[in-house]
Amino acid sequence: MSTHSAQPAVTVLGLGPMGRALAGAFLDAGTPTTVWNRTPGRDRELVARGAAGAGSAEEAAAASGLVVVCVVDYDAVDSVLRRDAVAGALKGRTVVNLTADTPGRARDTAAWAAEHGVRYLDGAIMTPTTTIGTPHAVFLHSGPEGLYREHLPVLEALGGVHTHLGEEIGRAAAHDIALLDVFWTSMAGYAHALAMARAEGVSPRELAPFARGIAEILPPIFEEIAEEAANGVFPGDGNPITSAASSMAHIVHASEAHGIDASVMRAVEGLTRRAIGLGHGADGFGRVADLLSRR
Amino acid sequence: MSTHSAQPAVTVLGLGPMGRALAGAFLDAGTPTTVWNRTPGRDRELVARGAAGAGSAEEAAAASGLVVVCVVDYDAVDSVLRRDAVAGALKGRTVVNLTADTPGRARDTAAWAAEHGVRYLDGAIMTPTTTIGTPHAVFLHSGPEGLYREHLPVLEALGGVHTHLGEEIGRAAAHDIALLDVFWTSMAGYAHALAMARAEGVSPRELAPFARGIAEILPPIFEEIAEEAANGVFPGDGNPITSAASSMAHIVHASEAHGIDASVMRAVEGLTRRAIGLGHGADGFGRVADLLSRR
Ligand SMILES: NC(=O)c1ccc[n+]([C@@H]2O[C@H](COP(=O)([O-])OP(=O)(O)OC[C@H]3O[C@@H](n4cnc5c(N)ncnc54)[C@H](OP(=O)(O)O)[C@@H]3O)[C@@H](O)[C@H]2O)c1
Ligand SMILES: NC(=O)c1ccc[n+]([C@@H]2O[C@H](COP(=O)([O-])OP(=O)(O)OC[C@H]3O[C@@H](n4cnc5c(N)ncnc54)[C@H](OP(=O)(O)O)[C@@H]3O)[C@@H](O)[C@H]2O)c1
Repeated sequence: MSTHSAQPAVTVLGLGPMGRALAGAFLDAGTPTTVWNRTPGRDRELVARGAAGAGSAEEAAAASGLVVVCVVDYDAVDSVLRRDAVAGALKGRTVVNLTADTPGRARDTAAWAAEHGVRYLDGAIMTPTTTIGTPHAVFLHSGPEGLYREHLPVLEALGGVHTHLGEEIGRAAAHDIALLDVFWTSMAGYAHALAMARAEGVSPRELAPFARGIAEILPPIFEEIAEEAANGVFPGDGNPITSAASSMAHIVHASEAHGIDASVMRAVEGLTRRAIGLGHGADGFGRVADLLSRR
Repeated sequence: MSTHSAQPAVTVLGLGPMGRALAGAFLDAGTPTTVWNRTPGRDRELVARGAAGAGSAEEAAAASGLVVVCVVDYDAVDSVLRRDAVAGALKGRTVVNLTADTPGRARDTAAWAAEHGVRYLDGAIMTPTTTIGTPHAVFLHSGPEGLYREHLPVLEALGGVHTHLGEEIGRAAAHDIALLDVFWTSMAGYAHALAMARAEGVSPRELAPFARGIAEILPPIFEEIAEEAANGVFPGDGNPITSAASSMAHIVHASEAHGIDASVMRAVEGLTRRAIGLGHGADGFGRVADLLSRR
């Protein structure tokens, strides 16, 4: 099936929401695409659109020179790839693993791939399924640069911006977890804010435009804090940590007065009080990042 | 001193970084401005620019029809305003309290003001000192609408966008703490991300542009979650809570493997696991806001 065209073919292992989006974008680009998923039936719509549905992971692996893996985590990756039949089928082929997990797991998978003669790139997808195939998708990659360049023309069918972060295989995952950290912590803060606002009679739709305004002021502040962290200098002139701690205490107090769990803000305040306790009360909040880095 | 011009005069009580910025903007607009601060000497630069430096809070309060208060919190507000001499001087005048604290404290201060014949508006400043006097400042107000309209022309010297959120005096503070919640939680997530990235050999300057990208995807997601919360429907098609929980566990694991405190993400994961435990694993993350609202 990978031979019906002169174009390089691709296989997608894993057809969750993201795997299906990836396979769909390959099909839209006219790339010969083979798909497989642990639970059968998930390939139906893709097969209707022209994908080849494989009966097993090894059959899928054998179908293409480039095998994209996108399952829930690396435990799932291991249970798909680390079987003799699959390892044998992958020999000499390239795996691009777009599953999210820790940098340590990426390194471990690269070691396994090297032992089995599998060429390996590790990647991360930073944007939702709806961005795949559009200019808004963001992909991070790490691993051998030559291998990356070889497959980039096919991967570009996924749309968006692809960045190669370096040869060290853990770098994509390192960026990924750091960025998911920012994302999910922010989302938790927003979820808590919606609950607090509602308890005060402010509806989600009333709060949303202002919350949007807060999100919009973050990018330049993020750049500023990165500069401070890079230089190890944390000026608190405009807004010292003590002032932040006072806001945090108000939030915890108002939240708990309404019976709303304030565990996240309590932890945030805890980091902040620790910085103050260590004598950094007059510094800016960037000092917290610095203290987290020290043991 | 408030009589050297036909323009309405203003007094600023509290000359921390924000109080000084407010007084400076009034001066820039040509508003006759009287200033006072608990610790003397903070008014030096403002007096050199034309402000009248008052020797006491009561003298400052008596100098203008509009008295803006901006100190660290409402304990500080109380210790400035709740003295007989100051209350007497404020009688019949308007206090606009731009100090941050909880909605409960705003209500309590309004009750005190009503008892003492002081006209009272409560407000919140959502942007840093550097925005004051520029189009980028954001001010929220609550309290009697007529009183707000009466003083808005003078307050507009502070620049930016002023929004009256309603007559209920706690509404500005309710928005303020909800938005500070989003802000400080996001900042804590970013501080943690910088520390994790650094432990993986990714420098703050390398991470910053990607972190900026994450902040940039938040505004539309915030709007979407607000719609879900308003409708009480939390579709998880693209990205169920279980998938978020899996990312969170990776973050905690990677953080603690480097000896980096993961208390904030542990609390975020805790909320998420609670949602899953209550049977909402297939929903979107907005469900967490809903559960926080329930007791
Ligand atoms: N969805 C997004 O918006 C998004 C955005 C960026 C990154 N990502 C990342 O993309 C990856 C895939 O995400 P997703 O959205 O498609 O959904 P997901 O729920 O994270 O993963 C579902 C996929 O994992 C497979 N799977 C789970 N356990 C398995 C096992 N033990 N053996 C084999 N396969 C197993 C599922 O197969 P079955 O059908 O057989 O259960 C299904 O194909 C994740 O790492 C996620 O973090 C997703
Ligand atoms: N800075 C910002 O970027 C920013 C942004 C938005 C909102 N705000 C809010 O604006 C308010 C003022 O903030 P700030 O940045 O100017 O600095 P701050 O450190 O929050 O407050 C300092 C001011 O509070 C006074 N103060 C403290 N305790 C007092 C007491 N017991 N009695 C009388 N005065 C007392 C200080 O007087 P002394 O000089 O005598 O100590 C000083 O004038 C806060 O509520 C803050 O949350 C600030």
